[in-house]
Amino acid sequence: MLIKMESEQRIIRLQKALNKMELDGALFVYPIDVYYFTGTRQNSTLWVPTEGNPMLLVRKSYARATTESLIEDTRPFPSSREFPNLFGPQIKRIGFTFDILPVQQYQYYSKMLPGREFTDISPINRELRSVKSEWELEQMRHSGDCLCSVFAQVPEFLKEGMRELDLSAEFECRLRKAGGEGYVRMRAFNQELFHGLAVSGATSDKPGFFDGAVSGRGLSAASPQGSSVEKIVAGSPVLLDYTVVFNGYIVDMTRMFVFGQPKPELEKAFATAIAIQQYLVENLKPGMICEDLFLVAASMAEDAGLGRNFMGAPGENARFVGHGVGLELDEYPVLAQGFKVPLQVGQTIAIEPKFVLPGLGAVGIENTFAVSSGGGIKITGMADEMISL
Amino acid sequence: MLIKMESEQRIIRLQKALNKMELDGALFVYPIDVYYFTGTRQNSTLWVPTEGNPMLLVRKSYARATTESLIEDTRPFPSSREFPNLFGPQIKRIGFTFDILPVQQYQYYSKMLPGREFTDISPINRELRSVKSEWELEQMRHSGDCLCSVFAQVPEFLKEGMRELDLSAEFECRLRKAGGEGYVRMRAFNQELFHGLAVSGATSDKPGFFDGAVSGRGLSAASPQGSSVEKIVAGSPVLLDYTVVFNGYIVDMTRMFVFGQPKPELEKAFATAIAIQQYLVENLKPGMICEDLFLVAASMAEDAGLGRNFMGAPGENARFVGHGVGLELDEYPVLAQGFKVPLQVGQTIAIEPKFVLPGLGAVGIENTFAVSSGGGIKITGMADEMISL
Repeated sequence: MLIKMESEQRIIRLQKALNKMELDGALFVYPIDVYYFTGTRQNSTLWVPTEGNPMLLVRKSYARATTESLIEDTRPFPSSREFPNLFGPQIKRIGFTFDILPVQQYQYYSKMLPGREFTDISPINRELRSVKSEWELEQMRHSGDCLCSVFAQVPEFLKEGMRELDLSAEFECRLRKAGGEGYVRMRAFNQELFHGLAVSGATSDKPGFFDGAVSGRGLSAASPQGSSVEKIVAGSPVLLDYTVVFNGYIVDMTRMFVFGQPKPELEKAFATAIAIQQYLVENLKPGMICEDLFLVAASMAEDAGLGRNFMGAPGENARFVGHGVGLELDEYPVLAQGFKVPLQVGQTIAIEPKFVLPGLGAVGIENTFAVSSGGGIKITGMADEMISL
Repeated sequence: MLIKMESEQRIIRLQKALNKMELDGALFVYPIDVYYFTGTRQNSTLWVPTEGNPMLLVRKSYARATTESLIEDTRPFPSSREFPNLFGPQIKRIGFTFDILPVQQYQYYSKMLPGREFTDISPINRELRSVKSEWELEQMRHSGDCLCSVFAQVPEFLKEGMRELDLSAEFECRLRKAGGEGYVRMRAFNQELFHGLAVSGATSDKPGFFDGAVSGRGLSAASPQGSSVEKIVAGSPVLLDYTVVFNGYIVDMTRMFVFGQPKPELEKAFATAIAIQQYLVENLKPGMICEDLFLVAASMAEDAGLGRNFMGAPGENARFVGHGVGLELDEYPVLAQGFKVPLQVGQTIAIEPKFVLPGLGAVGIENTFAVSSGGGIKITGMADEMISL
């Protein structure tokens, strides 16, 4: 359960940001945004005035929301006639998260609150969320321990000749039993992820829609991601990229497994990924510029002769090497081209240098780290080596 | 893989609808909408002019999209400078699905295509999708067989004293091994579902955000749905409400299990659910009005003295008894109050009369049916009885 002090501090930080933007308040309608500020993800709308106390309007379930909400003024969602009266004439400029607000919802609120100006606060919402409190880091450490405990079991159930799909099923089953909450939230409009990826060399070298280095073939054109029905064979690199969710907080990691000896090209690429991770971890400090870190990583890949294989199949490379994680898998900041902002203490970032070698498969490493003055602190505390079986 | 004829017929039906609305074409940006018309769910935008040939603009992965897309004119997404030139001055009125289009995307396309009028085509998009072709019914029958095969195994792994969570994990593992694609798509803005629900009497009587009769407690306030860590005890009804996805097509079903003898109140409620399902199946015929079917179902619940327990915890009852399923779990039509439209042959509907008895738990039945002139044809072909263990 979220604690009262967390909720209060988050709202104070938001109110400061709203004040700076000269807004009179903000409406949150997206479940995980509402959860962040209130402690409940029931179907509701949160009103945070720039000055004064927030108000949570619950559609369903009001009974459950009252047991979870940390907002004193939690009430059933009012009728369309009553709704406008909750907002006095002094409320003129209202913030909304346009990155996920559907046009139909926008039209509904425009009609309910005529004459008001709506402004996009998506960037400040994501920015606020990117810095984690000690309480949040504690949730993520729990997530990390849970995920590592399942990764540690892989040698027990990964068998030569098994289908990628069966490996997924076994991994996911253990993740759930370890307390994984299942549904992984992503913010980007056209992204989806079911738990993670269990892919081998036969499929991991193919491009896909996913905004990551590796997509997997998936089971159909409708679900073109993750494991396929291909069998895992000796020498082929098995890449397991999985997430887990605990109290809503996501942690993300990747490990490599192989039966027998991997090809030298794969070993070289893996060693380069480890070196890039090492450089990034040492520099995961406040003030470092996200884009600069990506550009150094890309140049290290280039120097190893692996520039065209870095972060994706050649020609479809992603231009990032790490992404924020938290209540969503794709939080701020992003270690990416164009992301010219400094890191802050408490940001949590999944660093994932990966290489895709056509005909051989994908290799790489991924760990979730917290930014600190001494460099990245590892949340996914398991050895990084490629595990031979 | 989607077949060419399907794609062509869907586009022709869409173009007729666009013509009727006096639109010049429609832009689709939501992955599953794009998949429906093109056969690929890669990250892309589909342009369907009211007259002429559609065009698929692919962001990622273009290589994969070219192997899947049934649209002849499939090309990489153009630059912002080139994009407007694809739309001549005769293109004035453009349809968009406002139900899922985020405001940021809307603003992007408004800027790219100045002077155009954008119109909401969400209702016609959902209406088109609600009627399934024989090819689609074939996918759904496969989904149904797959789901039933896992339900049939439940007596092998459901054990007295196990946690709801472990039951979920075992069920989900088998669903994946049977070919379940995992990610379950929902259209409604604030809804989420991870696979389904495995809940017992200790938790199934509590309300939740989910727009269904039963939510489950879940594992935290952030993931307040589905199984909890409660143990399953004798006499307590175990409700398994699960979906499966095959080639993108979802089927939905619920079965009840119990150790020992259920309480007479539960048996009576279950018998009423079966009677309501029987009535609805006999009337799942073209021309029947959705709302009327719901109202009869509600009155049957009322007559059994279970009106306040119907479709939810007392006071938080959902006002529906069945919902369309297909590429999304919440398709049209809905057997719901206010849904005054006639059924059509080929619509696929999950019928799920359920009762929530505070202190005892939830009971009910759910099957997916296809509407036909002879009444509902069952896609989830497994016996309906409550299974005693």
